[in-house]
Amino acid sequence: MKLGVCYYPEHWPEERWPIDARMMREAGLSRVRIGEFAWSRIEPEPGQFEWAGLDRAIDLLHSEGLEIILGTPTATPPKWLVDSMPEMVALDRDGKPRSFGSRRHYCFSHQGYREQCARITEALATRYGDHPAVVSWQTDNEYGCHDTVQSFSVAARDGFRDWLADRYRTIDALNAAWGNVFWSMEYRSFNEIELPNLTVTEANPSHWLAFRRFSSDQVIAFNRLQVEILRKHSPGRDITHNAMGFYAGYDHFALGEELDVLGWDSYPLGFLETFRFSEADKITYARTGHPDIAAFHHDLYRGCARNGRWSVLEQQPGPVNWARNNPAPHDGMVNLWTMEAAAHGAEMLCYFRWRQAAFAQEQMHAGLLRPNGEPAPALHEAKQSATDLKSINPDSAPDKHAAIIFSYESEWITQIQPQGQDLSAIWAAFSCYSALRENGLNVDFVRPGAALDGYGIAVVPCLPVVSPELVKSLAAFKGQIVLGPRTGSKTADLTIPKNLAPGLLQELIPLTVTRSESLRPGLVHDGDGWRLTRWLDHIEGNAKPDLVCRDGTIASWKHENVRYCAGWPEGSLIREVLARTLAQTSLPVQELPTGLRCVTHASGRYWFNYGPGTANAGEEILPPAGWTFEQFS
Amino acid sequence: MKLGVCYYPEHWPEERWPIDARMMREAGLSRVRIGEFAWSRIEPEPGQFEWAGLDRAIDLLHSEGLEIILGTPTATPPKWLVDSMPEMVALDRDGKPRSFGSRRHYCFSHQGYREQCARITEALATRYGDHPAVVSWQTDNEYGCHDTVQSFSVAARDGFRDWLADRYRTIDALNAAWGNVFWSMEYRSFNEIELPNLTVTEANPSHWLAFRRFSSDQVIAFNRLQVEILRKHSPGRDITHNAMGFYAGYDHFALGEELDVLGWDSYPLGFLETFRFSEADKITYARTGHPDIAAFHHDLYRGCARNGRWSVLEQQPGPVNWARNNPAPHDGMVNLWTMEAAAHGAEMLCYFRWRQAAFAQEQMHAGLLRPNGEPAPALHEAKQSATDLKSINPDSAPDKHAAIIFSYESEWITQIQPQGQDLSAIWAAFSCYSALRENGLNVDFVRPGAALDGYGIAVVPCLPVVSPELVKSLAAFKGQIVLGPRTGSKTADLTIPKNLAPGLLQELIPLTVTRSESLRPGLVHDGDGWRLTRWLDHIEGNAKPDLVCRDGTIASWKHENVRYCAGWPEGSLIREVLARTLAQTSLPVQELPTGLRCVTHASGRYWFNYGPGTANAGEEILPPAGWTFEQFS
Amino acid sequence: MKLGVCYYPEHWPEERWPIDARMMREAGLSRVRIGEFAWSRIEPEPGQFEWAGLDRAIDLLHSEGLEIILGTPTATPPKWLVDSMPEMVALDRDGKPRSFGSRRHYCFSHQGYREQCARITEALATRYGDHPAVVSWQTDNEYGCHDTVQSFSVAARDGFRDWLADRYRTIDALNAAWGNVFWSMEYRSFNEIELPNLTVTEANPSHWLAFRRFSSDQVIAFNRLQVEILRKHSPGRDITHNAMGFYAGYDHFALGEELDVLGWDSYPLGFLETFRFSEADKITYARTGHPDIAAFHHDLYRGCARNGRWSVLEQQPGPVNWARNNPAPHDGMVNLWTMEAAAHGAEMLCYFRWRQAAFAQEQMHAGLLRPNGEPAPALHEAKQSATDLKSINPDSAPDKHAAIIFSYESEWITQIQPQGQDLSAIWAAFSCYSALRENGLNVDFVRPGAALDGYGIAVVPCLPVVSPELVKSLAAFKGQIVLGPRTGSKTADLTIPKNLAPGLLQELIPLTVTRSESLRPGLVHDGDGWRLTRWLDHIEGNAKPDLVCRDGTIASWKHENVRYCAGWPEGSLIREVLARTLAQTSLPVQELPTGLRCVTHASGRYWFNYGPGTANAGEEILPPAGWTFEQFS
Ligand SMILES: [Zn+2]
Ligand SMILES: [Zn+2]
Ligand SMILES: [Zn+2]
Repeated sequence: MKLGVCYYPEHWPEERWPIDARMMREAGLSRVRIGEFAWSRIEPEPGQFEWAGLDRAIDLLHSEGLEIILGTPTATPPKWLVDSMPEMVALDRDGKPRSFGSRRHYCFSHQGYREQCARITEALATRYGDHPAVVSWQTDNEYGCHDTVQSFSVAARDGFRDWLADRYRTIDALNAAWGNVFWSMEYRSFNEIELPNLTVTEANPSHWLAFRRFSSDQVIAFNRLQVEILRKHSPGRDITHNAMGFYAGYDHFALGEELDVLGWDSYPLGFLETFRFSEADKITYARTGHPDIAAFHHDLYRGCARNGRWSVLEQQPGPVNWARNNPAPHDGMVNLWTMEAAAHGAEMLCYFRWRQAAFAQEQMHAGLLRPNGEPAPALHEAKQSATDLKSINPDSAPDKHAAIIFSYESEWITQIQPQGQDLSAIWAAFSCYSALRENGLNVDFVRPGAALDGYGIAVVPCLPVVSPELVKSLAAFKGQIVLGPRTGSKTADLTIPKNLAPGLLQELIPLTVTRSESLRPGLVHDGDGWRLTRWLDHIEGNAKPDLVCRDGTIASWKHENVRYCAGWPEGSLIREVLARTLAQTSLPVQELPTGLRCVTHASGRYWFNYGPGTANAGEEILPPAGWTFEQFS
Repeated sequence: MKLGVCYYPEHWPEERWPIDARMMREAGLSRVRIGEFAWSRIEPEPGQFEWAGLDRAIDLLHSEGLEIILGTPTATPPKWLVDSMPEMVALDRDGKPRSFGSRRHYCFSHQGYREQCARITEALATRYGDHPAVVSWQTDNEYGCHDTVQSFSVAARDGFRDWLADRYRTIDALNAAWGNVFWSMEYRSFNEIELPNLTVTEANPSHWLAFRRFSSDQVIAFNRLQVEILRKHSPGRDITHNAMGFYAGYDHFALGEELDVLGWDSYPLGFLETFRFSEADKITYARTGHPDIAAFHHDLYRGCARNGRWSVLEQQPGPVNWARNNPAPHDGMVNLWTMEAAAHGAEMLCYFRWRQAAFAQEQMHAGLLRPNGEPAPALHEAKQSATDLKSINPDSAPDKHAAIIFSYESEWITQIQPQGQDLSAIWAAFSCYSALRENGLNVDFVRPGAALDGYGIAVVPCLPVVSPELVKSLAAFKGQIVLGPRTGSKTADLTIPKNLAPGLLQELIPLTVTRSESLRPGLVHDGDGWRLTRWLDHIEGNAKPDLVCRDGTIASWKHENVRYCAGWPEGSLIREVLARTLAQTSLPVQELPTGLRCVTHASGRYWFNYGPGTANAGEEILPPAGWTFEQFS
Repeated sequence: MKLGVCYYPEHWPEERWPIDARMMREAGLSRVRIGEFAWSRIEPEPGQFEWAGLDRAIDLLHSEGLEIILGTPTATPPKWLVDSMPEMVALDRDGKPRSFGSRRHYCFSHQGYREQCARITEALATRYGDHPAVVSWQTDNEYGCHDTVQSFSVAARDGFRDWLADRYRTIDALNAAWGNVFWSMEYRSFNEIELPNLTVTEANPSHWLAFRRFSSDQVIAFNRLQVEILRKHSPGRDITHNAMGFYAGYDHFALGEELDVLGWDSYPLGFLETFRFSEADKITYARTGHPDIAAFHHDLYRGCARNGRWSVLEQQPGPVNWARNNPAPHDGMVNLWTMEAAAHGAEMLCYFRWRQAAFAQEQMHAGLLRPNGEPAPALHEAKQSATDLKSINPDSAPDKHAAIIFSYESEWITQIQPQGQDLSAIWAAFSCYSALRENGLNVDFVRPGAALDGYGIAVVPCLPVVSPELVKSLAAFKGQIVLGPRTGSKTADLTIPKNLAPGLLQELIPLTVTRSESLRPGLVHDGDGWRLTRWLDHIEGNAKPDLVCRDGTIASWKHENVRYCAGWPEGSLIREVLARTLAQTSLPVQELPTGLRCVTHASGRYWFNYGPGTANAGEEILPPAGWTFEQFS
């Protein structure tokens, strides 16, 4: 794995650049990501390009042997551009414009802005496309950050109407597919269809799902426009983009298809604080991050990447500025996070950022250097990582153990129609992932319908829409299968299948979900050392009870190599169901102590201690924030 | 009591209709409610009516002997109609349009839409007004659902100005009545008056109360327009409308006056989850509903109905889709809920809905049939209920025990001017209702000023505006009277009466409220086995202390047959005050175990067990979700 | 200290006025504040003045010997005025107009409205400027109440652009100062700059800080316009304004400079309920107020006042209407609050209001009289206070013990860039204030850079921007100095200083903050009887550890007479740091029991018991709500 750093030469006096470049090299970094927010410097007035600064920055970095990832600056169009077509900004769900003054102030569907993006990308690509230092391009920055995928603008509405006409061909087909007769919501033409916001009560869920799909497709199309220009003018360079954490605003499998390398931005402490971890976990792991946060995304985005090529484009190096509370990483964690990315197969990791900015929105976001240019603690850990990677640099992928089958539209569906408080497909996937990793296993994320050869277990945490391809791949799979609730419960248009849930999966397991209930927190069915919470599917059919609560409620069902979990796949229930299932596989299961995790390769096993105390990792005793590599003899 | 079901033939293939109709009949149902969301099918293009489908559906249902409640489709105007006059939609309190895409997308004050409603009602009434199957009409659907009574549109503003001019005659009279001098809010003409939203801090409470009254009046006028057309073209049919739970957006006494039968929609589990019950109750009663939820509304709407004729137009048959969490009813509860409606005197109960829709907004809402057309558990309980009702079908009203005096404007006033966190007149009424029912009593809701003959106790939980008629009826009443705080504390314009609270009621009890304080949760005054919470009125006058806290705070006052409760009427305080009061009556008081309730008729007593365990009901031991009828010998 | 009352003759029949005036005099009141909401009576039609009523009211009050504080009515422009220029209202952060219907419906930047204010002020000042009864003028009412300082209108935007051009001169200077290069936020002219609301994610913090400064300056300029007119037409009268509690919307030091006497409005129970006190404190002190609420503002506004002349313009006399819960003061508290104001050096205290209004927004707000004109309990306590003040009327200021250095922009900065949940400069100041007062000390608030002579300790709780003047005054100070976190961490443009925090203060203490972390509640570092919470600065340099947590974390640092507190200055940590520091002074430190407070003058000590039990105050035992004066022998 290569190490790199995100750098903004335009933020610093030019006389400092050589010092920075030398320090980067000396720290063992070989890549620099630049340029993604520099539009106002590149083109300070409409059509007037000022290349000299960027030319010199690139040449200077090149002269120190650093390889460059060059970003297109389309996440930050300058004020003059926005003023020239004010309707290019997105509208929020309330219809308010999301205006200039920070970043991402654009609507993905606005054709005029797309043309501007093509123009600036073309200008950059023609100027630097064959520069020897430029080894990679990043399109835009963090698509969807600040909730920007969905726009409720006129441009989006018009685009949506076209998209619907393409997909459904006739308005009668759309009315039938969505069941618009329900509340006299029938349309006479595609031009009568509005965006699903601002309705009196919730819009038709089919309407929402179509809009989510459309919005995701707009991101892909927006990105593709830049990719095509870059491929043309800068052949042979890898094109990448940086995805985010716990974010499902667009289909990352689809984006992965368009890119050479899928990147993501890893902020374990910020994510712990921001997302739905327990209060206790938020304190226990405040300075290490929950042990599955980074790993989950490493494995997820490896699965989304076209050929499994992925990287970390931004790595947290210290306290950030954007979470509600922003503690510092425990000593050693920056090194540990780096090595865990390597263990999961990243081909590069960039720290964000080189030097803490002394100004603007992210001035409280740490860097490898302090704002005054002196080393911050992370610089030493980056250096240490560079050294470590010289001896231990996995060139293999982790062994195949468990597969989790996930789709982004599953998360859209659980957001559109949660049916129970906070029930979410991606968090169901996270719970299953955690439970598998606590058993010492590697986990791959697999697109529905992809082959499952080599895995011992395949878990489908919550996948409402099931395709024939998925059924086929599961039917062909010889390992153990666990299906979670709501799986197979919907058609592609978000209606209920004629044969009820689990729909097509009835081919695999002879049961029908006749009734689903969601249970408020605290309303539980106790088992023996576990409890069913939050959801209960009532089942008919010939599958056999697998796990039964003390009150007789059946928590999971079984037929041959397939289990159906009738409760929400979380906590002690999913741990119990997976433990029973894993016992029927020959996977190298080992129950790990709290906070310890491992990644197993053919050559050995990587151990990572996220816990507050020491932990036995193979032969070794790991201190907090410690990691090691156990070579197989 | 008759049983019926809500049915949407337009949602299903026509070849299924005969099967459905036969199954309804076989289940013992005799009524079908149809048509209330079918506008886009009846009139797919402006002015082009397509009656054939509805004709055939009505004839088919008729051929199975089913009686039809036909709904006017005005809750769901089609897109073409909204597009023809976009300003017909309501504006929310922030001024945002509440647009097409779900239902109830209209402003009650919009004259153009009222004309459209008259047109479609006239069309339906002339076509089906004398059809032998049509025994009843329902106007619109759930007025006010999704917070739709108040609209902040231009149509509402103009209507409000006219309404004010009618009510106050001169602008000086309005300025004086509202005290507009307070913050230089004096108007020079009615045309200067705006709606009370979007002000810098709260608008004048008198302004708000006028707007709430106006908004309620708009609902009544909107409804009356349809009623007049229906009465003209369909004489002899009962006209009804379906009210909602814990909803006070308009004056239901006023609506009741306009209708032949007042209906309501009973969703005990959804209401438990949605409304202000304790966390503990939300778990204990998750699958049965709090024992007073359905009963409270049965008795309230019986009181609001013109001649006491009322029905349940929608009965929850399984999990719903709209609460935050949606558990399934305990086995037996659908039968229990049905029989409790009968015990309270409903003349009909319709289950909502016949078959679970496979599509659109309510696809997760259970029906008597599953989405695939097979029976769901509720069908069996409906059948059981039909059988039960053959032997036990009360044709009497419950015996008269206790009267609660309630007005809708009381709730508007406590919303406009709560003075203490979450203090609400309707919830005060609910607390009093619960305490009376826990003592085994029947409760009637009585409009202020109506005669109180036959009751042993009259409770006025919280009625800020007291009329001379109410004073007269209370003065004539020989039973015990309990007045709650804030009663008599306001004039009709929401100002303080010259003689202070309880205003006109000083004729009944010689006391003056000189100071009122609201107490945050946790700030309590302990009594002996009870505690005063949330509110404390300081009193002067000649009434005697009735109940005194350990610290000397006087919790209730007494004069002859009248008590004044100085703390908020909830929890252990109101239980204690009512227990002391009931001890002075000859009512058949019996303290019931938790979760058990009864309804007493001349001929016997109905028992209902909502609790998690068994309960002794007269001679019988009831299981959870059990009910019985104890015949008086 | 004089006593007075707020009175609204326009609310009551004229025949009542003589009774009111006589009762005021008999109660020992000598001042009456009138007129501040009476515009619609003074000028009922554009340009038509109706002076007769106000003439008679002033003469009548004068005839009873009462002195008048006359308010300009600019907080409540009449409807006709707003209709004549609708764009005079402010827009809220979402862009919605803040319309007529309550009060404060104006934008400070609207030039047309400023002209109207000048016109009405001129009219009042010329009519009453030399009236012998008029001894003082109040400008407007509670600037900023209901969050009205910031307006996002076109008038504000245009004013902001001018203000920026004045301050930065060139757009390049502004771009550089704000670091606008960060996200291509560079402007080409001042006319490209928008207000910082409605951005996709947060705007540049420098942008926000400039807007906060601009908004504050608009208040000062708005006020100055009236002051100039009043000084011209009514020479020799004191000009005042009433500030609010826990409110930092504008710079009160700057406003203080413009006025003769700075007033404030003291509602201890409303503030306790509304602001960030613990649940336990909200119950313990529900009827007395937290013991530091009133005192904190007395001392703060004394510090903001030009010559230390300050008063209480509104004193809570009973339950108010505007907090979430509104309990009544404990018997004696109105007297105690009055005497504490005297002890802190107020020159006047006015009760709000004379008679409880029977109508409009504040009808549930108590007065000295009930709505029916009879005495409420506070009238007796006001009378008692008048008597008490005859024997005990401090004409000295409290002794100098401790100085807290505070600036309003500190609070703006912690609001703009909290970095940790709810961390706030003004609440840090409150915590330090409480800890000092619990040690029996007097506290003065001092503007940064002012001389510190005479104090034993100077505390800088949280002051991000440090000026050379402050460094100079601290360097000259011989007492003990305590610096809190974030102090000196920012430049005047809200960027990070080149030498990092504490910036210029490195001249006083040789340390550098190399990293700051914020800690979520519950993430603590325990000391011996205290704990570090919410924040931790990592330090390098030659200062010595002063206070160390059990895990080795250094909680405070020391160098000569300067301490730097590395944790958030709250709770047990700041108590410990201050206790250690006070031990090195010769101040008359005494640890007071919970709820007891004192104010020390040269002649003696005032004791106030806010606690629920009795307390030993010097030689005396004080009951709850008791106070006494201990004369020094
Ligand atoms: Zn981001
Ligand atoms: Zn509804
Ligand atoms: Zn105020």
